[in-house]
Amino acid sequence: MNQKEFSIPVRVYIEDTDAGGIVYYVNYLKFMERSRTELFRSLGFPKPAVLEEGMLMVVASAEANYKLSARLDDQLRVTTRIKNLGRSFVEFEQNVIRESDAGDALLCEGSIKVACVKRDTMRPCAFPDRVKRALQEYLGGEN
Amino acid sequence: MNQKEFSIPVRVYIEDTDAGGIVYYVNYLKFMERSRTELFRSLGFPKPAVLEEGMLMVVASAEANYKLSARLDDQLRVTTRIKNLGRSFVEFEQNVIRESDAGDALLCEGSIKVACVKRDTMRPCAFPDRVKRALQEYLGGEN
Amino acid sequence: MNQKEFSIPVRVYIEDTDAGGIVYYVNYLKFMERSRTELFRSLGFPKPAVLEEGMLMVVASAEANYKLSARLDDQLRVTTRIKNLGRSFVEFEQNVIRESDAGDALLCEGSIKVACVKRDTMRPCAFPDRVKRALQEYLGGEN
Amino acid sequence: MNQKEFSIPVRVYIEDTDAGGIVYYVNYLKFMERSRTELFRSLGFPKPAVLEEGMLMVVASAEANYKLSARLDDQLRVTTRIKNLGRSFVEFEQNVIRESDAGDALLCEGSIKVACVKRDTMRPCAFPDRVKRALQEYLGGEN
Repeated sequence: MNQKEFSIPVRVYIEDTDAGGIVYYVNYLKFMERSRTELFRSLGFPKPAVLEEGMLMVVASAEANYKLSARLDDQLRVTTRIKNLGRSFVEFEQNVIRESDAGDALLCEGSIKVACVKRDTMRPCAFPDRVKRALQEYLGGEN
Repeated sequence: MNQKEFSIPVRVYIEDTDAGGIVYYVNYLKFMERSRTELFRSLGFPKPAVLEEGMLMVVASAEANYKLSARLDDQLRVTTRIKNLGRSFVEFEQNVIRESDAGDALLCEGSIKVACVKRDTMRPCAFPDRVKRALQEYLGGEN
Repeated sequence: MNQKEFSIPVRVYIEDTDAGGIVYYVNYLKFMERSRTELFRSLGFPKPAVLEEGMLMVVASAEANYKLSARLDDQLRVTTRIKNLGRSFVEFEQNVIRESDAGDALLCEGSIKVACVKRDTMRPCAFPDRVKRALQEYLGGEN
Repeated sequence: MNQKEFSIPVRVYIEDTDAGGIVYYVNYLKFMERSRTELFRSLGFPKPAVLEEGMLMVVASAEANYKLSARLDDQLRVTTRIKNLGRSFVEFEQNVIRESDAGDALLCEGSIKVACVKRDTMRPCAFPDRVKRALQEYLGGEN
């Protein structure tokens, strides 16, 4: 019933920062993608961007709300939760959280919609059955 | 009354692409920021990220909707339109458009909210007067 | 006999900087690649990374020496000079120069070796004839 | 006497790749920096880029030789070895290695020279004593 939270640790390196002394805001979207990718890998899909020959997973929309800034060397936790599972898309809710001795702090919230498309036409297509099954099983009948 | 459209040209280089053979979706947000930066530069602010000593312009939220994909060597036009001008923030509507002999194609639409904050506290503060005036003048009394 | 200098302008955006307040050193290599790409485009190759069906241009080695740092909003000029033209590779010498009222300043020198390879095997192959001819003509009989 | 090899694991994500279907060659330098950063962290320096108030660690030169290409989802190991320790600089030798069931494969070799500079002048300065001592201890009297 309840989807367990999936997360990965991300360390902030100098490559992630900008001249404001903080993580360049665009890079949170990269951190979120790493977390989604590892969720799929944990479900048995070692090549999550290409679920099957001739298919691609592409981002259809992305929304991020920035609360606080991460800084160089911060230790982050990037969560992934499936909010909605469709025939040819998945909607994710994701958080970037800073972990420190002072406790956790929510830095950025993201809503990402990923679509399954045919590589040649870039048009939506249904997830392969084994992907659909794996996602439904992960959701525990939630969707 | 009518805000004229501001835009910059952006060429797609290999650094912008990913293994799907298309522009990595996160990078459209970089293209949009270049366009916003040049709009401010055109209004007489040569250092748009730091409008004044002790201030920073930070992205408070970003939303992107992806329609079509750009490919290596594509010639893009990235537009910026001010949708809403507040005391300490600006909301932008931006488009990434592919230009080709076949005509223009809309690839990505973005809504970006940028806030003016104090560098030390990262808390919102009002735009400096000369920035506010320049933006209002640009908008031609629209806002 | 004398190869004319080829260069492109590059503006420094926030995406290019790091928490040191300067351009992230890795990004000078991106600027150099943009300049090489535009040199090829100016010679009549609109898709420089893929000179011909089944071929790729790949970087075999890269060396960069850093003299001075570029900062946000700096206006740069990135030069490209062909140092050596082989059967299946080209060696480039490249400079990143900051332009300002105080005069030009050399920020970074690069030596980049690019090889022509077959896409399927990733093994070196000779440049297509029309590429070789265009490069030799550009060099004016220098090589 | 013998410096033990230091390494970190790096997974290849879509953000690291380019339209050639391989890791964008510039990004190997980012992977190497992550490994150097973690070496310093393991020696007790939680903020390796800023060893001390008013100092910065900057890359003075970088050289990379590319042997084979990494692909999406590859599991890499990125090694760091101190080759030379000076008063105000360190030279590193680094390798990016692909791990797979077929065994290890060397993808890229790097030589990176990092200098300690004063933040205000960007001029070289001697490493703080505690950094020098930690590095010498790590090297086991090798340098």
